[in-house]
Amino acid sequence: MAKRIAAFGEVMMRLQAPGYDLLSQANTLSYSFSGTGVNVAGALARLGHDSYLVSCLPPNPVGDAAAASLRKLGISQSFVARGGKYMGMYFLENGFGPRPSRVTYSNRMESSFNTAPEETYDFESIAKQVDAVHFCGITLAMNDVVRNHMFRFASAVKANGGHVVFDCNYRPSLWGNDGYAKAKPFYERMLRLADIAMLNELDAMHILGLASEKSAREDLLAELIPAVADSYGISVAAGTHRSVNPDNTHSLRGYMYTQRNFFFSDTLTFAVYDRIGAGDAYASGIVHGEFERFAPEKTVRFAAAAAMLAHTTAGDTPVSSENEILKAMERSAGDIER
Amino acid sequence: MAKRIAAFGEVMMRLQAPGYDLLSQANTLSYSFSGTGVNVAGALARLGHDSYLVSCLPPNPVGDAAAASLRKLGISQSFVARGGKYMGMYFLENGFGPRPSRVTYSNRMESSFNTAPEETYDFESIAKQVDAVHFCGITLAMNDVVRNHMFRFASAVKANGGHVVFDCNYRPSLWGNDGYAKAKPFYERMLRLADIAMLNELDAMHILGLASEKSAREDLLAELIPAVADSYGISVAAGTHRSVNPDNTHSLRGYMYTQRNFFFSDTLTFAVYDRIGAGDAYASGIVHGEFERFAPEKTVRFAAAAAMLAHTTAGDTPVSSENEILKAMERSAGDIER
Amino acid sequence: MAKRIAAFGEVMMRLQAPGYDLLSQANTLSYSFSGTGVNVAGALARLGHDSYLVSCLPPNPVGDAAAASLRKLGISQSFVARGGKYMGMYFLENGFGPRPSRVTYSNRMESSFNTAPEETYDFESIAKQVDAVHFCGITLAMNDVVRNHMFRFASAVKANGGHVVFDCNYRPSLWGNDGYAKAKPFYERMLRLADIAMLNELDAMHILGLASEKSAREDLLAELIPAVADSYGISVAAGTHRSVNPDNTHSLRGYMYTQRNFFFSDTLTFAVYDRIGAGDAYASGIVHGEFERFAPEKTVRFAAAAAMLAHTTAGDTPVSSENEILKAMERSAGDIER
Amino acid sequence: MAKRIAAFGEVMMRLQAPGYDLLSQANTLSYSFSGTGVNVAGALARLGHDSYLVSCLPPNPVGDAAAASLRKLGISQSFVARGGKYMGMYFLENGFGPRPSRVTYSNRMESSFNTAPEETYDFESIAKQVDAVHFCGITLAMNDVVRNHMFRFASAVKANGGHVVFDCNYRPSLWGNDGYAKAKPFYERMLRLADIAMLNELDAMHILGLASEKSAREDLLAELIPAVADSYGISVAAGTHRSVNPDNTHSLRGYMYTQRNFFFSDTLTFAVYDRIGAGDAYASGIVHGEFERFAPEKTVRFAAAAAMLAHTTAGDTPVSSENEILKAMERSAGDIER
Amino acid sequence: MAKRIAAFGEVMMRLQAPGYDLLSQANTLSYSFSGTGVNVAGALARLGHDSYLVSCLPPNPVGDAAAASLRKLGISQSFVARGGKYMGMYFLENGFGPRPSRVTYSNRMESSFNTAPEETYDFESIAKQVDAVHFCGITLAMNDVVRNHMFRFASAVKANGGHVVFDCNYRPSLWGNDGYAKAKPFYERMLRLADIAMLNELDAMHILGLASEKSAREDLLAELIPAVADSYGISVAAGTHRSVNPDNTHSLRGYMYTQRNFFFSDTLTFAVYDRIGAGDAYASGIVHGEFERFAPEKTVRFAAAAAMLAHTTAGDTPVSSENEILKAMERSAGDIER
Amino acid sequence: MAKRIAAFGEVMMRLQAPGYDLLSQANTLSYSFSGTGVNVAGALARLGHDSYLVSCLPPNPVGDAAAASLRKLGISQSFVARGGKYMGMYFLENGFGPRPSRVTYSNRMESSFNTAPEETYDFESIAKQVDAVHFCGITLAMNDVVRNHMFRFASAVKANGGHVVFDCNYRPSLWGNDGYAKAKPFYERMLRLADIAMLNELDAMHILGLASEKSAREDLLAELIPAVADSYGISVAAGTHRSVNPDNTHSLRGYMYTQRNFFFSDTLTFAVYDRIGAGDAYASGIVHGEFERFAPEKTVRFAAAAAMLAHTTAGDTPVSSENEILKAMERSAGDIER
Repeated sequence: MAKRIAAFGEVMMRLQAPGYDLLSQANTLSYSFSGTGVNVAGALARLGHDSYLVSCLPPNPVGDAAAASLRKLGISQSFVARGGKYMGMYFLENGFGPRPSRVTYSNRMESSFNTAPEETYDFESIAKQVDAVHFCGITLAMNDVVRNHMFRFASAVKANGGHVVFDCNYRPSLWGNDGYAKAKPFYERMLRLADIAMLNELDAMHILGLASEKSAREDLLAELIPAVADSYGISVAAGTHRSVNPDNTHSLRGYMYTQRNFFFSDTLTFAVYDRIGAGDAYASGIVHGEFERFAPEKTVRFAAAAAMLAHTTAGDTPVSSENEILKAMERSAGDIER
Repeated sequence: MAKRIAAFGEVMMRLQAPGYDLLSQANTLSYSFSGTGVNVAGALARLGHDSYLVSCLPPNPVGDAAAASLRKLGISQSFVARGGKYMGMYFLENGFGPRPSRVTYSNRMESSFNTAPEETYDFESIAKQVDAVHFCGITLAMNDVVRNHMFRFASAVKANGGHVVFDCNYRPSLWGNDGYAKAKPFYERMLRLADIAMLNELDAMHILGLASEKSAREDLLAELIPAVADSYGISVAAGTHRSVNPDNTHSLRGYMYTQRNFFFSDTLTFAVYDRIGAGDAYASGIVHGEFERFAPEKTVRFAAAAAMLAHTTAGDTPVSSENEILKAMERSAGDIER
Repeated sequence: MAKRIAAFGEVMMRLQAPGYDLLSQANTLSYSFSGTGVNVAGALARLGHDSYLVSCLPPNPVGDAAAASLRKLGISQSFVARGGKYMGMYFLENGFGPRPSRVTYSNRMESSFNTAPEETYDFESIAKQVDAVHFCGITLAMNDVVRNHMFRFASAVKANGGHVVFDCNYRPSLWGNDGYAKAKPFYERMLRLADIAMLNELDAMHILGLASEKSAREDLLAELIPAVADSYGISVAAGTHRSVNPDNTHSLRGYMYTQRNFFFSDTLTFAVYDRIGAGDAYASGIVHGEFERFAPEKTVRFAAAAAMLAHTTAGDTPVSSENEILKAMERSAGDIER
Repeated sequence: MAKRIAAFGEVMMRLQAPGYDLLSQANTLSYSFSGTGVNVAGALARLGHDSYLVSCLPPNPVGDAAAASLRKLGISQSFVARGGKYMGMYFLENGFGPRPSRVTYSNRMESSFNTAPEETYDFESIAKQVDAVHFCGITLAMNDVVRNHMFRFASAVKANGGHVVFDCNYRPSLWGNDGYAKAKPFYERMLRLADIAMLNELDAMHILGLASEKSAREDLLAELIPAVADSYGISVAAGTHRSVNPDNTHSLRGYMYTQRNFFFSDTLTFAVYDRIGAGDAYASGIVHGEFERFAPEKTVRFAAAAAMLAHTTAGDTPVSSENEILKAMERSAGDIER
Repeated sequence: MAKRIAAFGEVMMRLQAPGYDLLSQANTLSYSFSGTGVNVAGALARLGHDSYLVSCLPPNPVGDAAAASLRKLGISQSFVARGGKYMGMYFLENGFGPRPSRVTYSNRMESSFNTAPEETYDFESIAKQVDAVHFCGITLAMNDVVRNHMFRFASAVKANGGHVVFDCNYRPSLWGNDGYAKAKPFYERMLRLADIAMLNELDAMHILGLASEKSAREDLLAELIPAVADSYGISVAAGTHRSVNPDNTHSLRGYMYTQRNFFFSDTLTFAVYDRIGAGDAYASGIVHGEFERFAPEKTVRFAAAAAMLAHTTAGDTPVSSENEILKAMERSAGDIER
Repeated sequence: MAKRIAAFGEVMMRLQAPGYDLLSQANTLSYSFSGTGVNVAGALARLGHDSYLVSCLPPNPVGDAAAASLRKLGISQSFVARGGKYMGMYFLENGFGPRPSRVTYSNRMESSFNTAPEETYDFESIAKQVDAVHFCGITLAMNDVVRNHMFRFASAVKANGGHVVFDCNYRPSLWGNDGYAKAKPFYERMLRLADIAMLNELDAMHILGLASEKSAREDLLAELIPAVADSYGISVAAGTHRSVNPDNTHSLRGYMYTQRNFFFSDTLTFAVYDRIGAGDAYASGIVHGEFERFAPEKTVRFAAAAAMLAHTTAGDTPVSSENEILKAMERSAGDIER
């Protein structure tokens, strides 16, 4: 049954060089609008839910273009404020084989979202109109006003009986020196509010400071995730282990910990067309599985297949339907569908 | 020596989303004109023969564009009628890795070709001007008037001493429920008129209803194809076994049965750029080998190499010259030719 | 104050050749989704109203792309059904100077919209949720089932206290021989249901059969429009006189007849970038003026400026905001806005 | 009734910068294949005649692309030889308003056409298969071997009862210093072989050395063209007067002198999209009028309208049908055709 | 003889929507790098001088692309610093006819140029290596640090015997409320340092506060410019009067005041392809004329022709050579150059 | 420390069909300017050196575009002459998997570079301004005048204490029948002038005529390279062994022989995006290592990594920075860099 979910986060304009050109070679860019919140809201809209974005866009033609793009993704803009002056932007140059992709940011700290004043959003009212809300660690890294938005919004949703989803998504470049120490109290506060948390053993060790004598990733996961779930009161913890293979395919295995049990997807190996946003597809798959009361075995496989498909489509925002993901769970490589 | 060959079939407009975009993401399409008849006639024109298409196009700018495209492929339009109102069209969204390509058709049943009245083509006259004619099972699925065109045309060519080529090419979606039962009498009629037939063991079992206790594809082929050839009086039967590998390469092995003997190509494995039309390249290779009186060993290898190359070029219609195919028979992957 | 308006009509896929190429020269197309209903609903959404489309789209990737496009235009899809198999399509080749643009249609009679069965839409329920509904003469030309949809929907809205807008928009090619005679009873029925009607003196004479001894267009208008308004009970009649000048600019003058008075805009003369959809911009301007209770003098000037701007933007669907139209009412040609 | 016409001339590859970019700004080019012979043969094919090109293309992928392009234009390649190594090429940068277009040539003197040896073409055989042949002054400027091809071919056609069309088309840059003196004997020889000649009063004075005391272009035309027609035995002389207006529109008036009478088109004024090849459209219109035995009044108006339309379509080669030209004769600027 | 000139100013990234699309319609952008300093330095490099830019670019892929673009324009980067993090950017949506172009800025206040610290440039050393330096009023509007750069640089050049060019270029949106009052002292300081100043009567009145009882622009110019030149010690004052005509052509007339005399170009009227940067072309033409010691009559006509051509080429930066400008001075509209 | 290096060679215009289209399928091309000299000079400019090209370009818009492109690559044009009429050009059609790429040349023998007269370049002066000069075997194949340029230039540099780099780069198609015999004396003369030579065992055997009884490539290398280095007085010999793998990845291993020792890189295996110019990246890496006095172990690994990266970027000319190459030496496949 369709649920109502809001995602809180910045809308970024992605400006991508064509093919495998560098910015200093090309003279055109393709653009789209994304961000973790956009991606999760868009993915869940595509999966049939009523999705809202809670964000702030500039009242100018760039903001209009972002709004049009959100509508195209099926995201309701009832809770999108217009204010400030600028849009966060990033440039993407596609890598090829041994050459990595490069991302160059514009000054997102001056964006409409990151400069939106305290009173911009009516969280009490929004909280009454949704079943769940999604936050992410990138937003947590922005500034104090944004963090206050997050805490107030999460608390309001909680108070109204809704669920809080938090994706740890720690980005070292956003936290600077001593990043983990700086981030810890904020992460702890969010995790205490969270019902569903996206994280893995590295987050547990580095951000939350848990220690272990294990060394294999699987062992660390088995030891640390239950500890985190217990101490922060998280009912679903989930995440992925990912590796880039020598032949440029990627491998990905999803895990989900709930009701004191671990569930794992198969390790999926596949060619990659567009890497960005695949983690958001995984998160959306977990949320969808919970919304639809899938068995955890199915939820984790669904989320992993959603993440795999997100690597094969253009843009940051997942565009696969439930039906396409279910089919992908049963198949490896496919011929033409006519 | 150059032969004169006519192909009978619909011209379809292919409307393809750019790169790996979905229709709901892009805003441009590239277009081309193809169809099994176009592909075979175009391939044989490229191989040096006088190729004709027997078809019907609308007398409007879309039909003009199709006609220009056929001319570009080297296909003579002496036998292309103009009438009706619409062009058959299909949309193609390219898949990537585990995400399959998607084909969405417009209403081809209303097309100029599928609504062309009985008297549209002067088959008697055409039959006198060609050495061979090519038909395909897709056309056979259209409607009774089209089927009558096929039977009359094939009979006329036969009566004038020409050869009839029939590619079974069974498409389940075109025949609906009880498809095999519905299709069987029409296929039998065409196979009785055919000198060269493209089919494999699955066609023999499913369409023609032959039974076997074997299970391996090779064993089934060895048992069933001679039976079909005998009972329908087919002098050359040919086809391919194809598989999609986990790394997204395709493997393909061609067979040819003639003069009571089987001939096989090597199993070729290769990366795929454009999947559609590769079967038509194989058929064209077999026809060319027969026209040129190649030894069967060479014909089957030539056809398989032609099919492989057709996977590496844009568009449905094979564009490789005889020389390029002969080179590809001797080489696997190649560096630059300067 | 924002009103709720539904438009009833087919969504067409527009496939446009690049620049000034013919279909037989190019190999790419740009595509968008439009139609009179889409254009009016899109224009009114941009002007700040809650816009709905009542239509039917195929449940396939082409229909998905249309739905995404409607969302982007800000049109609510609450009342868009999914069914049938095909999308109406048309090809557009841009003219240049003395060479006219060419439009070639696919078979729209087989489209999802034109084959939607009687029970597709719940008009009673929709009528309760809107303040007004828009219909157009193109839709009226389709078939009996579609016409019945129109009459039932218009009656339901009327019965619920809503307003009915009808744009005569007579297309000779859709009605065939004896078109006017065939169309007359249906037009009369729609006009009797209409509160706001878009038409001019030619419609009055040709479709409705009114006679006059005048010859100048202005005189005919002055005589015939009041007669039509009286006999069909129309509270607002509006339309344009348009001419193509020798230097390829267009001239356009809007009229509006209401409360027994005529109001006219200035004659606007301007360069044209994309001609299609400008009439829908005019109609939307009239509706917006009525919704906002503009003085008729302002409404007719607003509608004419909206039509003028619609000639200067890409695509069929008007994209100008109220503010941009108000500015254009005060200005002729403009330099850069920074 | 369809006639058979051959054009003799070089195929040039046109490499055009996008929009109004300079070569030093852009990084893509669009390409097409043209030349006076291609343009006239293509135009006459579009007008329903059997058109042949007599030319020579390199046996490489560039030559293959040219051949495919000729086929697309409906030009038979029965008489196209393959030999030599290179294609003549030119770069085109579109001008805008007061900035002129720029053409930069590659070394066409080394092209397959300009280095084709004496025995390349079997003119005796070709002459028997055509009703007329077209030559142009650009070809005459190339070299002695090419000129010998021209004289032999024209004589053969004449000997077989066919008609010779010669377009003077004098290009100063191709003849160098003392160009007129150098060119005169060759032009005289071609004009003596010609039945239809495209020229105007400037050609008569500068190339053929006629003198007059008149100064107005019309007076010069009236005096000199009859003299040229008489002394060289030309049955139809035709040409245009053209001017570029301050608002960047062009004006064009066609003349035709036959049976001792002058016939003129109206002066047509129109916006210009692609200037190159319009003269060839005019010549094709005159030839078509003669083939179809139009009255001279109609022929000259038809040719002028054909030339006007050729300014409104992309590429050098005229693409308008007889029907489109006839319509354009009756209309100035046009709205959409649906 | 080639001179050495440095321009001081920000490099902006221009992100332009394709054709006449809005940002909310398109999904690609073309990009280039410009700014008044870039435009003047680029124009003078194209006119044969040694041009330098004194500016600061971020040390990231966007800065690399800007640097590559400057090199392509022939601008030496010896004095381009690398530092800071961001590039100033603006989005451009092309207007059409009555619809104006729209420019939307990103946060240029945070750009590398506008945050470059005091010690970034070694003005003493640069001043010794150039003959002249160019500044503009846009740069003057940025912030105090940037203004200090300007004053220090101008003083250093003056002290070393070089010439100072200052283009008033007042942009209301950059100065905010009370803009003229705020700007006045800075403009006065720059004008006292300037040898060549670009301004007109509006600048004299609004920025410098001069009063007059005249009303016609010409009369105001004749009265106020000599007053300004006298009181600030300016040896050359120059500027343009520009108007947009109802048919969307622009008209432009240049003036130059030097040695107590006024010189005027003809009023040029022309179609416009790309409006931005034309004022910089005019300024460059004046500077070039002074460098080359043209007579003032020629300089002002040269500058006006340069400005006219700059409207006909893509991008902000003028790309016409001296020869092309000289030709344009003698011609209105032109046919093909081959 | 930055060195000054000049490369002597032709600038070629590369005209590339889009994606994997054949020339006979596409209608656009992308273009860039390259050549061995351009590639080496461009690569070394990117690595921080002062790079010069010694070449000749036509004084027309195509030459201007080439010059702009060289500037963009950071190559100084102080020594680029302008003369002659034509640009060497080649067409590139990308291969896919088993289908090889195809290169078709225009007539480069007529190019400005290949027809530049004896006195075009002032080698004495240039030699005084550079630390090293680079030549290649392709240039050596052109004609006697070009070869004399090479010998004079190399001698002048040597006489001035600079270093000579010579890349053997033997292209069979350029030398014709008896190519090796014809080439040998010229190669010997260049090798005697060279300090650094790019070659491998096949060059030693085929061009220089050395014999061996070995058969494995490694053994041949070990035997023949020291012999060549000794007899021609070469201080650094370097080159690669390359193979195309069945899965279309390429493998490459670099060698370097100096001070009587061999040094090898690992065998690198990687996906290939653009094959052309990778050899020039390797040569540039060797030169850079020598300039920077890297240990030979590091130089050979640096050169191999540079070559690998050059396969992953668009265009012929390497665009990787020193930092990017150093990173690639430590990593195989990479995820996103943000």
